[in-house]
Amino acid sequence: MAKKAKYVYYFGGGKAEGKSKMKELLGGKGANLAEMSSLGLPVPPGFTITTEVCDLYYKLGHKYPNGLHKQVDEGIKKMENVTGKTFGKGPKPLLVSVRSGAAVSMPGMMDTVLNLGLNDKTLPAMIELTGNERFVWDSYRRFMQMFGDVVLGMKHDDFEEALDKVKKNRKAANDTDLDVEGLKEVVEEYKKVYKKAKKKFPQDARKQLQAAVDAVFGSWNNPRAIRYRQINEIRGLLGTAVNVQAMVFGNMGDSSGTGVAFTRDPSTGKNKFYGEYLMNAQGEDVVAGIRTPKHISELQKQNRKVYKQLTDIRKKLEEHYRDMQDIEFTIEQGELYMLQTRTGKRTAAAAVKVAVDMMKEGLIDEKTAVCRVDPKQLDQLLHPTFDPKAEDRADCVATGLPASPGAATGQAVFDADTAEEWAEEGKDVILIRIETSPEDIGGMHAAKGILTSRGGMTSHAAVVARGMGTCCVAGSDGCVIDYKKASMKAGGKTIKQGDWISLNGSTGKVYADKVDTIDPKLTGPFGTIMKLSDKYRKIGVRTNADTPHDTEVAVRFGAEGIGLTRTEHMFFEGDRIVSMRKMILAEDEEGRKKALKELLPLQKKDFKGIFKALKGKPATIRFLDPPLHEFVPHDKKGQDEMAKAMGVSAAKIKVKVESLHEFNPMLGHRGCRLGIYYPEITATQARAVIEAAYEVRGAKPEIMIPLVGNVKELANQKQLVEDIYEEIKKKKGRALSYLKIGTMIEVPRGAITADEVAKEAEFFSFGTNDLTQMGCGFSRDDAGKFLNQYVEEGIYDADPFQVLDRDGVGELVRIAVCRGRQTRPDIKLGICGEHGGDPSSVEFCHMVGLDYVSCSPYRVPIARLAAAQAFINRGAPGELTKVARKTAKKKAKKKTVKSNVAKKSKKKVNKKAKKKAKKK
Amino acid sequence: MAKKAKYVYYFGGGKAEGKSKMKELLGGKGANLAEMSSLGLPVPPGFTITTEVCDLYYKLGHKYPNGLHKQVDEGIKKMENVTGKTFGKGPKPLLVSVRSGAAVSMPGMMDTVLNLGLNDKTLPAMIELTGNERFVWDSYRRFMQMFGDVVLGMKHDDFEEALDKVKKNRKAANDTDLDVEGLKEVVEEYKKVYKKAKKKFPQDARKQLQAAVDAVFGSWNNPRAIRYRQINEIRGLLGTAVNVQAMVFGNMGDSSGTGVAFTRDPSTGKNKFYGEYLMNAQGEDVVAGIRTPKHISELQKQNRKVYKQLTDIRKKLEEHYRDMQDIEFTIEQGELYMLQTRTGKRTAAAAVKVAVDMMKEGLIDEKTAVCRVDPKQLDQLLHPTFDPKAEDRADCVATGLPASPGAATGQAVFDADTAEEWAEEGKDVILIRIETSPEDIGGMHAAKGILTSRGGMTSHAAVVARGMGTCCVAGSDGCVIDYKKASMKAGGKTIKQGDWISLNGSTGKVYADKVDTIDPKLTGPFGTIMKLSDKYRKIGVRTNADTPHDTEVAVRFGAEGIGLTRTEHMFFEGDRIVSMRKMILAEDEEGRKKALKELLPLQKKDFKGIFKALKGKPATIRFLDPPLHEFVPHDKKGQDEMAKAMGVSAAKIKVKVESLHEFNPMLGHRGCRLGIYYPEITATQARAVIEAAYEVRGAKPEIMIPLVGNVKELANQKQLVEDIYEEIKKKKGRALSYLKIGTMIEVPRGAITADEVAKEAEFFSFGTNDLTQMGCGFSRDDAGKFLNQYVEEGIYDADPFQVLDRDGVGELVRIAVCRGRQTRPDIKLGICGEHGGDPSSVEFCHMVGLDYVSCSPYRVPIARLAAAQAFINRGAPGELTKVARKTAKKKAKKKTVKSNVAKKSKKKVNKKAKKKAKKK
Repeated sequence: MAKKAKYVYYFGGGKAEGKSKMKELLGGKGANLAEMSSLGLPVPPGFTITTEVCDLYYKLGHKYPNGLHKQVDEGIKKMENVTGKTFGKGPKPLLVSVRSGAAVSMPGMMDTVLNLGLNDKTLPAMIELTGNERFVWDSYRRFMQMFGDVVLGMKHDDFEEALDKVKKNRKAANDTDLDVEGLKEVVEEYKKVYKKAKKKFPQDARKQLQAAVDAVFGSWNNPRAIRYRQINEIRGLLGTAVNVQAMVFGNMGDSSGTGVAFTRDPSTGKNKFYGEYLMNAQGEDVVAGIRTPKHISELQKQNRKVYKQLTDIRKKLEEHYRDMQDIEFTIEQGELYMLQTRTGKRTAAAAVKVAVDMMKEGLIDEKTAVCRVDPKQLDQLLHPTFDPKAEDRADCVATGLPASPGAATGQAVFDADTAEEWAEEGKDVILIRIETSPEDIGGMHAAKGILTSRGGMTSHAAVVARGMGTCCVAGSDGCVIDYKKASMKAGGKTIKQGDWISLNGSTGKVYADKVDTIDPKLTGPFGTIMKLSDKYRKIGVRTNADTPHDTEVAVRFGAEGIGLTRTEHMFFEGDRIVSMRKMILAEDEEGRKKALKELLPLQKKDFKGIFKALKGKPATIRFLDPPLHEFVPHDKKGQDEMAKAMGVSAAKIKVKVESLHEFNPMLGHRGCRLGIYYPEITATQARAVIEAAYEVRGAKPEIMIPLVGNVKELANQKQLVEDIYEEIKKKKGRALSYLKIGTMIEVPRGAITADEVAKEAEFFSFGTNDLTQMGCGFSRDDAGKFLNQYVEEGIYDADPFQVLDRDGVGELVRIAVCRGRQTRPDIKLGICGEHGGDPSSVEFCHMVGLDYVSCSPYRVPIARLAAAQAFINRGAPGELTKVARKTAKKKAKKKTVKSNVAKKSKKKVNKKAKKKAKKK
Repeated sequence: MAKKAKYVYYFGGGKAEGKSKMKELLGGKGANLAEMSSLGLPVPPGFTITTEVCDLYYKLGHKYPNGLHKQVDEGIKKMENVTGKTFGKGPKPLLVSVRSGAAVSMPGMMDTVLNLGLNDKTLPAMIELTGNERFVWDSYRRFMQMFGDVVLGMKHDDFEEALDKVKKNRKAANDTDLDVEGLKEVVEEYKKVYKKAKKKFPQDARKQLQAAVDAVFGSWNNPRAIRYRQINEIRGLLGTAVNVQAMVFGNMGDSSGTGVAFTRDPSTGKNKFYGEYLMNAQGEDVVAGIRTPKHISELQKQNRKVYKQLTDIRKKLEEHYRDMQDIEFTIEQGELYMLQTRTGKRTAAAAVKVAVDMMKEGLIDEKTAVCRVDPKQLDQLLHPTFDPKAEDRADCVATGLPASPGAATGQAVFDADTAEEWAEEGKDVILIRIETSPEDIGGMHAAKGILTSRGGMTSHAAVVARGMGTCCVAGSDGCVIDYKKASMKAGGKTIKQGDWISLNGSTGKVYADKVDTIDPKLTGPFGTIMKLSDKYRKIGVRTNADTPHDTEVAVRFGAEGIGLTRTEHMFFEGDRIVSMRKMILAEDEEGRKKALKELLPLQKKDFKGIFKALKGKPATIRFLDPPLHEFVPHDKKGQDEMAKAMGVSAAKIKVKVESLHEFNPMLGHRGCRLGIYYPEITATQARAVIEAAYEVRGAKPEIMIPLVGNVKELANQKQLVEDIYEEIKKKKGRALSYLKIGTMIEVPRGAITADEVAKEAEFFSFGTNDLTQMGCGFSRDDAGKFLNQYVEEGIYDADPFQVLDRDGVGELVRIAVCRGRQTRPDIKLGICGEHGGDPSSVEFCHMVGLDYVSCSPYRVPIARLAAAQAFINRGAPGELTKVARKTAKKKAKKKTVKSNVAKKSKKKVNKKAKKKAKKK
C-alpha cells in the first residue's frame, strides 16, 4: 500500500503489464492472459484486479482501497481504445466478462458474469453491430439471469420458471427453439422476477461492473469455495483476482465456435494435439454435453486458417512454457481468440511420458523432468487399474476412503477363512469386513482387494493393505455389512457371498460388478524417471517389509534394504499364533521358554527368507513391539477355542486376558518394556536373527529395540542380544561380518535424550507414527473424531499421521538428529513410520539429514522420486542440522565410537556382561 | 590404582589417617571413628579397609588388589603397638571386631564378626590376662558360632540345637546359667557341628581375619542388603568399608557396660542427653531386650567419672559436628571407649526443634538450619498423628501404601453415600473401597480417612486424598473387601460396617481398632523454619485447590495463590453431575447450551468462593480437561438411573456412552480439544470465571487452556474467552484490572513449540503429570506393572510420576522455558503437576527458573522449605536456562509483548475476531 499502489494490470493489443510469473498477484488466469498477450497471441483485451485487492476488500470490511476505481476506469479506457468500442453505450458497445481467478485453479467454485454491459440502450446498438437480433436478445436474457443469480443472489429457479413459462406458452421444446419474440418475452418475464424479488437490474454498465466485481470477490469466501480449499489443502492465498475482459462470441453463427484443448494427450502423454470444439456455441455448451463436440483435428477441415493458427500457438506455448498446456479458445466470426492457457492436468502415465519426452526434445533439463512428476501420482502406475471405459459403465454403489491404491475385482467374501479357502481354489476374492483385525491377516493376504465399512486411512486394514500393496477401500460407511447373513447392502443393492464386486483403491469407489483391470508397466519413461531420481537423490530408500515376498517386491521397486521388519506380524501366520498365545498365557518363565522354543525355528526361517531376498542389503528387524493383549482372543468363542487348544479352563484364559487389559495400551506394557519384563522373548528373537544371519551369506541384520525412552532400557536389551551373539559366535567359531544394534526413536523422551541413547545405539530409526501419537498426544485410533476438524480449521496443515508435522514432531526428530550425532557422529539415521513414503515428509527427512527413509514396498518409487525432488528443490541434505553436524565432525576427529558390535573384542563384551551381572 | 594405592586407613592413639569427610571412602562408621580418634576421644585403635576395595573385590571377581594384604598387616602391627597386645597369640592376645560400614547407614543389613583372634592357643592367655575364665569361654563359643554362621554360611539352627542340648543336660534355663564346664562342653559340641558340616574352624587368627573380611564384603550384595538399598533408594555407592578394631568388652564384670545415646532427644528435639545403658553387657544385649536398660542419667550414680567423661564428649561432639549425634560406647572395667558416632535420626518435630535451637545456640547459621529439616518429613507435622503409645498397642491387620499422610480413626463404611450420611450425623467415618472413582468424591470429602485395596501412589484415591489433605492408605491388597456384605477381611479379622478402624497414612498401616490421635501445632520452631524458608526461597509457592475450603487451608499453609483449579471436580458435586451428563448426552448444540445454563450459576458461585478465599491472590483456573466419558455411568444400573433422570431410553444412553469409548483416552478427545469441538463449553466456563471476577473485589483470574500442543488451539480458545470478556465488559462498562489467559504445557509438542505457543500464552503452567505420561510414553494407570521393576533395576532413579525426571521430562520443561521466554520475556512460568510438592522436583523448578510451583495444600510448607533449600544448595535461580534468559532480555528491550488481555483495546480484539470470522 505504497503511495501509488498498483491494483489493476492491463493486457491486450500485444502488450501486458503482468506476466505469467505473477500468479500470486494476478491469479493463474490473469497472469497467463497477460503472458499470452505479451507473446503476441490474439487475446481479447482486458485487465486484472489483483488478489491483493481481494485481501484488502475483506480487511477493510467489504470496501475497496483508494485509487482502485480510477485504475479500473483507466483499464476500461484502454480496452475501449484497442477495440474501438465503448463500454455501456453504442454505437459499438463494449461487452465484458468478469471472471475470478486465484493463484491455484478452483474450477467452478467462484462466480463468473458474462455479457456484462448489455442494457436497454446497448442492446439495439449490438443488434445493429452484429446484425443478429436473436443472438443479442439471447445474450441479454442470459446476462439478466446470470446477474440476478450470481450478483444479486436471486433464486435460480425463479428465472428457470419464467423461462419455462414462455417456452410452454410458445410450445418451444428447447431454449434454442425460442425466436426473437420469445426471447423478448423472456426478458419481460425476467424483469418481473426482479420486481417480485425487489431487486433492481442496473442499467448503468459501470454499476453492473462494480456489482459483478463485488460478487466475484465475495465468492472467494462462499462455503463451497472454502470447502474446496480445505479438501484440496489450498492455503496461504491472498484471495482471488478478478479478470475483466472484452467479450468474444463463439455463438455468433456458423463461422464462430469455441473449444478446449491440451497440447499433448493428458491421458497417455502422447505428443498429439488433443481437444474438442463446437461451432456456434459458447463455452458452457461444450461443458453441458447437450451437443457432442468434435475432435480438434476436424477443425482443419472446417477452418484451415484457424487450425493452422491454433497449432502454431500450440507449439509457441509449449516452447514458451516448456510444459503441456490446457487452452481455451473462441472463434468469433472466423477470428481466433485465446481465452486461457494453463498447465494441463494429466494422469500419472502422461506426466511421466511428457516429462521424459520434453527432456528428450530438449525443452527441459533432467532436473525439471524429475520435478514434473508428482510423486503421489506414481501410485497409479504401480498397481493394476481399471479399464476406464469398463469403470464408466460399472455400477458404483458406494464410496469409501482410497486407503490403498490399485483396482481389484473378485467375488465377495465376508470372513478371512473363506477368503483363504476360495483363493486356494483359484478364485479371485474381495474380503469385506466391518473392520479388520490382526487375525484376518491370512484372508487379507489371499484377497485381491479389501473393503471395510469402518476405520480411516490409518486403520488396520489400510495400513496392512498398503504394506502388502493390496487395493483397499476403507471406512465405506455406505456399506451395511451383515456377517450373519454373509451379505452387504450398499446403494440399494444387496451383495451376497460369491457375488462379483470391484474396488478402486485410488478413488474409494465400490462397484457391484466385475470390472476389467489393466496391469502396470514399470519400464519405458517410468524407468527413465526412476533412473534420474536415483541420480539426483541424496537419501537412501528402504522398505518396510515383513515377509520374503514383500521384500522381493520392494527390491524390484528399488528398495536398498529393509528399514523395518515387524516381527509381530510373523506371529499371526498359521499355527504360530497358538504358540504365541501359549507363551503369553504361560504361568512362569519355564512355560514361556517352552512356547518360545516352538516359535524359534519359525522366526529363524522367516529371517533367512528375508535375508536371502535382500541379497546382501541390510535389514532392520524390530523386536516384539505391541502389547501382548493384541495377540489373545477377546471374545468368548475365541477364548473357548484357545482353552481347548491349550488344555486349560476357559475361565483361566478369561482371567489372564483380562489381566492384560490396559487403559491406555499405547502408553502401556509394550516395546522394550516387554523385553525387559520377559528377557526370554528378546533372547529368542535375538537367537533367531543371529542364527539366520550365520546361515545366509551376506546377511546384514540390524536389530532394533523398540520404544526406548531411556538409554538404560536399550543397554539392558543390548546386553541380552550381545550375550546371545557371544554364545553363538563361540559355537560357530567366527564373528558375523555385520551386526548392528540400535533403536527406534518413537518416545519423545528418546528423542530429547538422544545424546544419551546414542551411547548405546548404532542407529536410530524414527518411528514417527508413535512419535506423533506421543508428541502431539493423539491416539491414532481415537483422534479421527477431532483431527478432521483440526485440519479443516487449519490448526494442523494436514493430518499429522499422513504428513509429518514438521514444527512439532519434526522438531523432535531434528533435536534427536543433532544430539545423536553429537555423541556418535557416524550414527545411522532413518525413518520407518508411515511418513517414509509421503513426499513432503521425505523432503523433511532430506532437509534434516537422515541417511534413509523406509516405506511400504509400493511407495518405494514415490520415495525415490520425492527424495530427488527434495535435493533439487532444497539443496544439499541436512540443511536443518548443519550447525550440529559441524560440531559432530569436530568431535569425530577427537574420538572414535565403536560402530559395530560384531567387531568388538569378545573380552570387552564379557567384561561388561560380568560387571552387569555382578551389579545385580 | 596409582603406584601406591592406599587401601587401609589407620586410627587410634589420638591420631587417624582418615576424617569424617571421607565417608564415601571409609564409610560412615570408619570416617567417624577416625574423626573421634583425631579429636582425642577414647577410641579403641583399628583401621578401615576402604569402599574402593569393595568395588575392586567385585570387579576383580572376588579378588583383592595387590598391596592390600601388606597394608592390613601394617594396620595390625600399629594396633599391636598401641595396645601392647599381639594378634593371634599370647601373652596378651589382641582380639578384634570386623564390622561393615557404608557411606549410608544400612543397620543390620550386613555382617559383623566379634571376638576375632580367639583360638585354642589365645584362649588360655586371655584367661590368664582377664582372670575371668567364664567370660573367655563364653566369648569363644560366641565367636565360633558367629564365625560359622556369618563367615562360613553354616546353619544358625545347628548351633542353637547344640547349645540347647548342653543346656538341657545341665538343666540350665538361660545361657548365663552355664558355668565354665558347661561352656567348654558347648565348644566341644560346636566343634562337632563344624565337623558334621564339613567346615573347618580356622585356628590361625590371620585366616580368621581374611575370611571375616571376605564375608563382610560379600554381604554388600546379599539379597536383603540389595533390597534395603532399593527400598531406601540408596544408589551410587562403591560398596561397604570394613572396620577392624580392637575389641573392648562391656561384659567383663560389673565395672563394665555398654550403651547407646543421642546428644538430644530424637523424638522431641529437646536439648537433653538421651540414651540407655546396661552394665556387664555387650551391645547385642541392649538390643535383645532380655534385660531392661537403664536411663543414661542413672550412670551418674553408677560411675560419676565415666558419666562426666561422657557428657563432656557429648558437648565436644555437638560442637564439633554441629548436629545432634547418635553414639555407642562401651565401658571396659571402668574405662570408657567410644565405638561410634553418627548424625542422629530424628522425628520431624525433633528435626525442626534441633535446627532452630542450634541456630539460637549459635552452633549453626540460618541457612544450615533451613537445610537441617528434610522437607518430606514436614508432612508429619501438618496432619493429626496417632498417639505413639496407643498405636503400639493397636492391632495392625494390614499394610498398604502410605498414599496421603496423617492419621485417622473412625467407623468403617463401604460406600460413598453412607459415608456422607453418617458424617452428617456427626460420625467419624473411614471410607473403604476397592478403588475410588470420581463418583465417590462426596464420600471422600466426608470421610476422616480413605482405604483402598487396589491402586498405587497416584491412583484416584491417592491423588484426591492428598489434594484434600485427607489421610489415605491405598492399594492395601491384604484387605479383601466385599461390597455386598459391606465388610472387609484383613489379618484374619472381619471388619463390618460401623466397626472402628484406624489408618496411618504416613506408614500405610491399617488397625482394626480405635486409636487416639494428636493434633498438629504449626507455631514455635515450625513457624521459625517456615519464616526462614520464605526468607531464602526465590520461587513462589501456590496451591492446587478446587474448593474455597481447600483454598483457605492452603492460604493458611502459606500458599501465594492458586496454581491449579480443576473445574471438572466441581462437576461431580451434588446434582451437578446430572446437568453435566445432560450436557454430554445432548443431541445438539441447543441441548448442550441448555444444560450448560444450569451449570453456569453453580460454577460462578464456586469461582466467587475461591476468589474470596484468596483475598487478592491470583488463581489459575483450568478449563474442562478430562474426556467426557469420565462423567457418564458405565454400568447398567447407573445408565438406567441416568435414563430415568433424563427421560430417555436406557438403550439411548448406552449407545451414547459407548460412542464415547476411546482406546487411549489419555491421548483422546479431552482438554482444549473438547473446547474446540464444543465451543459452548469453553464459553460457559469463561462466562462463569469472568462474571465471578467482576463480582469479587481484587479477583485475579488466570484462565488456563489445557492440553495445548499447537498454538492455534490456544488461539482458538483464547478468542472465545476474549469474545465473552468483551461482551461482559461492555455490559459492565469497565475492564477487569487483571485477567490473564495462558496454557498448560503438558503435551510434548507444546513444550517443543513453546516459542509459538508463547505468542498467545501469557503464562505457562507445566502439567508434568501428563508431560511425563506423553514424554516417557507411560500411562499412569498401566505403568505400575513395569515401573516398579524399572526403578528397582535403576532404569529410572525414581518413579517419574513422583520425582520429576530431570533428563527427559525436565529437559522438555527446560526447552519450553527457553523458547517461551525467547518470544515473551515476561511470560509467567509455573508447574502444577503432582511434582510441585516434591522437594527434588521443586529444586529442579528453581534451577530451571520457574516463577512458582503449585502443589496440594498440605504440601505447601514442604514446597516452601524445599524452595529455600534449592536456593541455598543450588544458588541463583534459573541456572539451567541462563543463556536463553540473556537472549530474552536483549529481545525484551527491543519489543514489548502485550502481557495482559485486560489492557488490550477493544478495537484490536474486535478486529481480530472479525478477521477470523471472515476466514471461516
